[in-house]
Amino acid sequence: MTAAPFDFSPLLPAGLPAAAARWTGLAKYSFVGGNNDPEQIPLDGLIEAVNAVLRREGQTLATYGLQSGPQGYLALRQFLSAKLRRDGGISCTADDVLIVSGSLQALDLVNATLLARGDTVIVERDTYQGTLNRLTRLGVNTIGIPLDGDGMRMDVLSDTLVDLKRRGITPKFIYTIPTVQNPTGTIMPEARRLELLKLAEQHGVPIFEDDCYADLIWDGKRPPAIHALSKSANVIHIGSFSKSIAPALRVGFIVAPWAAMSRMLALKTDAGSGALEQMVLAEYCTPHFETHVPALRRGLRAKLDTLMEALNEHFGTTAEFEVPKGGIFLWVKLPDHVDTLKLYQAALAAGVSINPGPEWSTDKAYAGSRLRLCFASPTHQQIREGVATFAEVCRKEFGVPTRSGNVEMKSRA
Amino acid sequence: MTAAPFDFSPLLPAGLPAAAARWTGLAKYSFVGGNNDPEQIPLDGLIEAVNAVLRREGQTLATYGLQSGPQGYLALRQFLSAKLRRDGGISCTADDVLIVSGSLQALDLVNATLLARGDTVIVERDTYQGTLNRLTRLGVNTIGIPLDGDGMRMDVLSDTLVDLKRRGITPKFIYTIPTVQNPTGTIMPEARRLELLKLAEQHGVPIFEDDCYADLIWDGKRPPAIHALSKSANVIHIGSFSKSIAPALRVGFIVAPWAAMSRMLALKTDAGSGALEQMVLAEYCTPHFETHVPALRRGLRAKLDTLMEALNEHFGTTAEFEVPKGGIFLWVKLPDHVDTLKLYQAALAAGVSINPGPEWSTDKAYAGSRLRLCFASPTHQQIREGVATFAEVCRKEFGVPTRSGNVEMKSRA
Repeated sequence: MTAAPFDFSPLLPAGLPAAAARWTGLAKYSFVGGNNDPEQIPLDGLIEAVNAVLRREGQTLATYGLQSGPQGYLALRQFLSAKLRRDGGISCTADDVLIVSGSLQALDLVNATLLARGDTVIVERDTYQGTLNRLTRLGVNTIGIPLDGDGMRMDVLSDTLVDLKRRGITPKFIYTIPTVQNPTGTIMPEARRLELLKLAEQHGVPIFEDDCYADLIWDGKRPPAIHALSKSANVIHIGSFSKSIAPALRVGFIVAPWAAMSRMLALKTDAGSGALEQMVLAEYCTPHFETHVPALRRGLRAKLDTLMEALNEHFGTTAEFEVPKGGIFLWVKLPDHVDTLKLYQAALAAGVSINPGPEWSTDKAYAGSRLRLCFASPTHQQIREGVATFAEVCRKEFGVPTRSGNVEMKSRA
Repeated sequence: MTAAPFDFSPLLPAGLPAAAARWTGLAKYSFVGGNNDPEQIPLDGLIEAVNAVLRREGQTLATYGLQSGPQGYLALRQFLSAKLRRDGGISCTADDVLIVSGSLQALDLVNATLLARGDTVIVERDTYQGTLNRLTRLGVNTIGIPLDGDGMRMDVLSDTLVDLKRRGITPKFIYTIPTVQNPTGTIMPEARRLELLKLAEQHGVPIFEDDCYADLIWDGKRPPAIHALSKSANVIHIGSFSKSIAPALRVGFIVAPWAAMSRMLALKTDAGSGALEQMVLAEYCTPHFETHVPALRRGLRAKLDTLMEALNEHFGTTAEFEVPKGGIFLWVKLPDHVDTLKLYQAALAAGVSINPGPEWSTDKAYAGSRLRLCFASPTHQQIREGVATFAEVCRKEFGVPTRSGNVEMKSRA
């Protein structure tokens, strides 16, 4: 290059997100992202599966969509329809399933099918950052409903729907993560799911059920999916293999009535999601999913225990949390004067990455002293060291926990 | 379900594409889509690669982005930077490469980075349908520049840029497929690439170079990429493994200046493209790409010959075409009174799928009697049978070719 470099900036449209920074690697102690436990990737099984499926039908890779059409690899959709029936009580066939490139593409497709700028949607007050960021970028009004130990509160939802109706607003959907809620870790019981369905039907609002974490319940017992309990086909259900097998594979799915799915398909202009990953998942999961997942859960539960012990040891009563019913994250409350956005920066400088609460909530003030800690990826030792380092940073920045934190410790498990 | 099914239609925003129809399978004789030759998928090599890479580093699948960061698997970016230098003369490092989910995601990211409704872009008059459809959906004014045997005509481009300037319009980019143009099969020579760069620089317009087919040139000799010839970093270059290895793998790439790439990265909110496909491609391509591709080209060239022979036999001089310099498609002109949109419907009913010209051109009248035939996927026998069936349909619908078509045949290869 000899001339002055071309200036792209005058060409950029309004409203672009800020430019990304150069990636500088993962933090030494990483408690962020939905990363999983490297030791629990079922490598032998995946290798066996990929050999079998490529030997048998590898030539189909020459065709976009693997000769299974735009909804994705047929064997994987068949596995999912059987699994969703067995685990979640969902009655669906392979024709009701759309394979997507991770549940993030599911979010994009559902949003694109239903939302326009200025629309209103209802979410849980504390919810998945990726969902909140998408809704913000789309210019959608997002109303957060507080949660209790059983998930989204139906009294507040009912009042909100009535209030919106008075103002002539029909929300486009109610987005919920009912089964191991992100970030609170709660599970909505069946009775409340039925209440939610009743309210949604009364108000003509569909439900967008994100069941990404539903495989990771400690005792393996889950209520029926909201999709399964609906009598009016008003639920769009999404899920993923990121948490149960491996996040880097980027395979998720949507179960939706054809009236909605046919619109999503028209918007899915990517010539299909990655075929090799769909093939290996179908081949591996059909025989092995039911034995793999309980072993994974046991390992995750042990890491959660290590994390809670480390927090008790270093923070004592300074760090408050409820024991999540499954999943890979813990939603932690620090004293009110702690600002987790500031703490995030200081911790990162010390090699510890955390998710500051305000990025995971519609109520930035409520979440200002909260944070999310993911425990699946670090080793037990990294969890212990990382929490110790994090406590040190927190003490230096905010004066808590005090040095005597560990003598104030009380058990909450 | 016992209640009436939920009605999604009042919730759909304006401007959605029409609902998709249920997929009904591939046509018996399929001459559409960028599908490749099933016999040429390098299965043994891919299987060897996937075993090696999973054994060595399969545990990294537990981490989004494979510990390589958001630009994609490092080993694949390293392979690409070496390959692009060797084949296209592009000076870039792995840091300049962004791995995406097929070149379709590349189109989406470049469009989202630069385009707003009402903007103007310049394309080749006959060009890739997926590009045209995206620009239409985005509400962008698309100006098509006619092509000759050397690709986009610079005299018309120059006049167009001057005319736009007079009207106060700066196009957001000039999109070109310079190396085996889709659908015309031309290759833009180096001198014209330099002319194009000069015009682009004079008018402050970046070039969007889509080099998807550049590996599939019959004699293997290609001019330097436009990106390589630029002195001002005003070119965004994209490519894909769909044509050289397998389309179902959904792996493409973008080479762009950081000023543009940092914006694309901020818009790529999919938590990374499929990792297993990136891993197997890096592992396979690094040692084998240079021997695989020439063998693939020889097979494709033989299928092209079969297609041209069949067209000569059944259509005679009724079907006009230039021999493409590479690729997997032939751009065919039928007599003016043939409407290939109608012919498409009739042929499909007879089991033959084709791409009607108007879907591949900004000039629907010019392209009305033209069509694109892809020849990589069908067998030699399917090509011969499919063309015979297609000629029969064309005769019945439009009276051409006449029964004596085959005695009018002349060789144009």
